[in-house]
Amino acid sequence: MSLLTVGTVAFDAIETPFGKTDKIVGGAATYIGLSASYFTNKVNLVSVVGEDFPKESIKMLQDHGINTQGLQVKQGEKTFFWSGKYHNDMNSRDTLDTQLNVLETFDPVIPEQYQDCDFLMLGNLVPAVQQKVINSLRTRPKLIVMDTMNFWMDIAMDDLKTTISMVDVLTINDAEARQLSGEYSLVKAAQKILKMGPRYLIIKKGEHGALLFNKGQVFFAPALPLEDVFDPTGAGDTFAGGFIGYLAESKDISFDGMKRAIIFGSAMASFCVEKFGTERLVNLSKEELESRVQEFINLVQFDIALV
Amino acid sequence: MSLLTVGTVAFDAIETPFGKTDKIVGGAATYIGLSASYFTNKVNLVSVVGEDFPKESIKMLQDHGINTQGLQVKQGEKTFFWSGKYHNDMNSRDTLDTQLNVLETFDPVIPEQYQDCDFLMLGNLVPAVQQKVINSLRTRPKLIVMDTMNFWMDIAMDDLKTTISMVDVLTINDAEARQLSGEYSLVKAAQKILKMGPRYLIIKKGEHGALLFNKGQVFFAPALPLEDVFDPTGAGDTFAGGFIGYLAESKDISFDGMKRAIIFGSAMASFCVEKFGTERLVNLSKEELESRVQEFINLVQFDIALV
Repeated sequence: MSLLTVGTVAFDAIETPFGKTDKIVGGAATYIGLSASYFTNKVNLVSVVGEDFPKESIKMLQDHGINTQGLQVKQGEKTFFWSGKYHNDMNSRDTLDTQLNVLETFDPVIPEQYQDCDFLMLGNLVPAVQQKVINSLRTRPKLIVMDTMNFWMDIAMDDLKTTISMVDVLTINDAEARQLSGEYSLVKAAQKILKMGPRYLIIKKGEHGALLFNKGQVFFAPALPLEDVFDPTGAGDTFAGGFIGYLAESKDISFDGMKRAIIFGSAMASFCVEKFGTERLVNLSKEELESRVQEFINLVQFDIALV
Repeated sequence: MSLLTVGTVAFDAIETPFGKTDKIVGGAATYIGLSASYFTNKVNLVSVVGEDFPKESIKMLQDHGINTQGLQVKQGEKTFFWSGKYHNDMNSRDTLDTQLNVLETFDPVIPEQYQDCDFLMLGNLVPAVQQKVINSLRTRPKLIVMDTMNFWMDIAMDDLKTTISMVDVLTINDAEARQLSGEYSLVKAAQKILKMGPRYLIIKKGEHGALLFNKGQVFFAPALPLEDVFDPTGAGDTFAGGFIGYLAESKDISFDGMKRAIIFGSAMASFCVEKFGTERLVNLSKEELESRVQEFINLVQFDIALV
């Protein structure tokens, strides 16, 4: 089934304890699209870049089967730029520079051939823009997944809550779940957030894995213990892309189906952090992916027969 | 098979965001013994208390089938006392007071009827005292599990490394694994620590679960997401007690057997944190335990069939 993703396509400059990059291609929609492309060949992308964005990077997306008809290229303008530096523990980072550029006036336009998509993945964006995307679709997708961040909780909480009320699955990290709910306990936080509208909540805990909640159930997926986390940039988006890409292909949005999708999303994220930016995501093989998923199975499977 | 545990029996005074206690009974061997008693009725305890230690607390241990012949009661002396205050996130705490008392001169004596034990659980103690216990046993136990803490890494690293080289399983938390190995990555830390002697390493990550490493395998057990963690005191010891108690009863020390033991240990720890001190551990039913283990199974089980 077709998947629409809306989010940033950007330049990032990243510094980690392992090294630093010049401007490289990043952005939520880039990671989501690339990750999803390993599961479905029907990824439609909506985003905006400036004339400085390299044509070969657009071609790279297209080579992964991503439809870029909805990628606006603004002449005379510059691509969104973010620069950040990770601390030694890789769990926290400082933003060094943010240049919104084309993002400041981003008005997502949904191409006619993108209408009637079954799955919608809203990457982190201004909540009002995310809303506009939902309202621009003639028929409501079968599943709407939304990512967001603490920044919008600080400056646009009302807008954010409206958007949250319109989606099926919300993905946020543990600190954001606490901020959004006002509860320290993630179980209590999840209970409150599920009352805001979404049927499912995914709490991303980085190196500590991810939790999936619905009203009566909870599932925990670990992160793979890695020798080195080289660059965490894009891991959450890669996770989301693998998650919704797998769902779009399997068409199974039951709780059990979502569990499987979370494992595939986690496997994709575990590749993402092994190299800078999208480097590890542009050329994965089916064998590598399956072998990684098998590692997740081995990591958590145990056999207890209760009487 | 019989289990010997050596560790502190103590008084604790605990303050958490949920309340505070006067002096209550605590100590590593108390938690280990109580937790193990739910799996095996052959728990032999070696420890020391002062004359101020209540007889009814010794009787409580005996009522759980714990042999207290090796519990020295020092007349005219006082029981080890620790007092601490947990921060709001429950992941860190300040020690308010430590009075070693009887612990200062603790010389563990192994009663004759404790000899030839199959399983030895060394609770956190001075590394030289832990060594003395191992050397006091006529035959080496089938499995020696050792807990320790950062304090000994700070002041007695050489002694500690000698003790570590003598055991089969080491249990430490993530910060301690990093300190002991000098590696931030837990995978690299585990590789280094396994070269120090133990065949197995368990890294406890509190609310983020636990990792079991041996030379070629890794297993991850989650912590149960709880509405409230009321008091984390003793959770690590309760985990260790459930782990070794389960092994002593199942007699299966394969990697798969250890996985099961870790799940049972995690289930016991999830009870421990629900109330102050040992309160939740003194009166658990078989049904409560099995239902809790089932929650762990539900939490992580998924079904992916790779081609």
